[in-house]
Amino acid sequence: MLPKGFFFDAVQAGIKYKNKFDLGLFHSDTDCVCSAMFTANRIKAAPIIVSNRHLHKTGRIRAIISNSGCANACTGRQGIKDARQMCKLAADKLNVLPEQVLVASTGVIGTYLPMQKIKTGVSRMDSKSTDFINAVNSIMTTDTAVKIESKQIRISGKTVTILGCTKGAGMIKPNLVKLSHATMLCYIFTDCAINRQMLDKILLPAVNNSFNLISVDGDMSTNDTVFLTANGKAGNKIINKSGKEFNMFNNAVTEVCLNLAKKMVQDGEGATKFVQIEVVNTDTAESAKKIAVAIANSALVKTAIFGGDPNWGRIMGALGTVDNVKYNPGRIDVYLNRICVCKNSQSVRYNEPTAIKLMQNRDISIKIDMHAGGKSVKYYTSDLSLDYVKINSHYRT
Amino acid sequence: MLPKGFFFDAVQAGIKYKNKFDLGLFHSDTDCVCSAMFTANRIKAAPIIVSNRHLHKTGRIRAIISNSGCANACTGRQGIKDARQMCKLAADKLNVLPEQVLVASTGVIGTYLPMQKIKTGVSRMDSKSTDFINAVNSIMTTDTAVKIESKQIRISGKTVTILGCTKGAGMIKPNLVKLSHATMLCYIFTDCAINRQMLDKILLPAVNNSFNLISVDGDMSTNDTVFLTANGKAGNKIINKSGKEFNMFNNAVTEVCLNLAKKMVQDGEGATKFVQIEVVNTDTAESAKKIAVAIANSALVKTAIFGGDPNWGRIMGALGTVDNVKYNPGRIDVYLNRICVCKNSQSVRYNEPTAIKLMQNRDISIKIDMHAGGKSVKYYTSDLSLDYVKINSHYRT
Repeated sequence: MLPKGFFFDAVQAGIKYKNKFDLGLFHSDTDCVCSAMFTANRIKAAPIIVSNRHLHKTGRIRAIISNSGCANACTGRQGIKDARQMCKLAADKLNVLPEQVLVASTGVIGTYLPMQKIKTGVSRMDSKSTDFINAVNSIMTTDTAVKIESKQIRISGKTVTILGCTKGAGMIKPNLVKLSHATMLCYIFTDCAINRQMLDKILLPAVNNSFNLISVDGDMSTNDTVFLTANGKAGNKIINKSGKEFNMFNNAVTEVCLNLAKKMVQDGEGATKFVQIEVVNTDTAESAKKIAVAIANSALVKTAIFGGDPNWGRIMGALGTVDNVKYNPGRIDVYLNRICVCKNSQSVRYNEPTAIKLMQNRDISIKIDMHAGGKSVKYYTSDLSLDYVKINSHYRT
Repeated sequence: MLPKGFFFDAVQAGIKYKNKFDLGLFHSDTDCVCSAMFTANRIKAAPIIVSNRHLHKTGRIRAIISNSGCANACTGRQGIKDARQMCKLAADKLNVLPEQVLVASTGVIGTYLPMQKIKTGVSRMDSKSTDFINAVNSIMTTDTAVKIESKQIRISGKTVTILGCTKGAGMIKPNLVKLSHATMLCYIFTDCAINRQMLDKILLPAVNNSFNLISVDGDMSTNDTVFLTANGKAGNKIINKSGKEFNMFNNAVTEVCLNLAKKMVQDGEGATKFVQIEVVNTDTAESAKKIAVAIANSALVKTAIFGGDPNWGRIMGALGTVDNVKYNPGRIDVYLNRICVCKNSQSVRYNEPTAIKLMQNRDISIKIDMHAGGKSVKYYTSDLSLDYVKINSHYRT
């Protein structure tokens, strides 16, 4: 189910280590409109700066070139030069302009790209290849699974395909903004005909309702990037205003993003649990999210979940740290896997053996009722396991 | 070096588990002035509410009764009743008024105090005992070491003794405020003659410059408490205004707090490293602290330190997440154990084997120069180790 007109290839350029795809090229044989979001981290990697410039220079994007093994962050002017050079190499290969190429990198911060290896790598690429799986492999770092989502819908009698991929297992607490943030990389390709303005209208809420509602370790990356690229080859009547077609396409993109986001959490570094945190009845949606984030980022909550311990007191401890949210500290209810464990902020009797048994499942649900309004959020996170520590204490050395 | 007129005892009341001191009584044979700070967590444990009331009712404190094994948090009206009952039991034992007794609890949230065991425990206490070590043991939970600091100074020809103890190894990111926050408990006893007003003047900055500058796991507790208690028995001329004597005493208390705070980090749950994070040349002291906190609470920074990996890029990633602080993202220098690894936000050449070797030490120093002003902070944290996860995934079950 590849969208029409898109091509994908990857090579083992030797950036990362032997026998791994680490350089990928994703391109369209015709011009694309593209909407992008980048990390909110104030320390921004060079490829983000260069991609952002290219997006402002042209509305006719043709390719994304990306590598793993090196984030090209904290690399100063040399980093900018290298990122531009990556675009130029891909542009020459595809016979397009350098500003029609976007670039993304993921890996270790503070190391320089091995440009000779990248040059050789690009020269070995096959611009007619459609091997999407290899290309997705080339952006993976500590990921253990390929994370792909695709969806087809009918718009004005034509089949429109949306294909998304993502990488990211650690340094995951995306906060993608106008620019935007995670090292998550997410590329979404579609052959839908749609103008740039409507594409932008889709990406921001889609990201806010997916990637910005997950956290693995609470660390926001310098390199997070989401590209949504549309080449129009499905031949549908172009979407250039709100309405039924826009809504259908919007929903499909949002669904792809949410499924990719959940897959990232499921494949979070060392994750043994998939945790849904639902916060309901807050004064604003932002309040609900703040509370969910505090719970999701609590090391004590995450280790208790890893240990299968229904220690809900840690949830109360975590949510109490949230400032500037209106609620009554004596009116909070907590449900752990649908068992009410705390009512009006006070311990209630519940069946402890059942509660412990349910904590052994892979899927864990936490629900908090704040009794302070009508807003809510669903947020997703993983546990903090021994493997998380093992993976991240031995990432480089 | 006990301050005059203070008595300490502890018993194994059976709150926690067998053969551990879990109920302690700290008291003075004469009235004390007392300054207190409690957690900023909005979910406050019952003993905090009761102690705060008692401090407002009377200026003549006589005792602190405290237990480990149960936090008496999220326990509603019953919890308040139990905390008041603890004060009453101690008051009857010592023949003082209940409001002259302060109370503190630490342990699991959401369980009720076993009041019969506490009653029996108090009846078995020896009010003439001066066994400070046993009393300190009674407030310990996952702590592996007794944390005590004492200091003697001469004021108006008299020897003044300051004796402090603290517990706390996990759920440690104190933020003690007017009320104030950590489950750290800290009790400081002194025989200095000083009035309440001057005592209050000392505690807030002392706490801000010690306990509020440490983090083990970034989790703020529902029970954090600092009590500073002075009974005047040293016989010095009472300190009731600013001046040389006030400054001497102030410095001594601050030093005791800072040393206790550092000991808490050194004994942090699973800690294998003691990390000093120095942030210099920021626009405000608050900015420096915000940046230090972001670094100290980054799971990726903490696991890299555990692994002995000089992966300074994670430090840059963490500090970039801080909002609303004035700096130039291209002008940051990073020193790891005094080696400059990043200059003007850009990787520099350094001796990697030496950098790796220094990361094997127990004491790690991180220094960040923001080049954005003249303010600075020193902040202290520990690493995130396999043992941290083991300890906290098996805390209860």
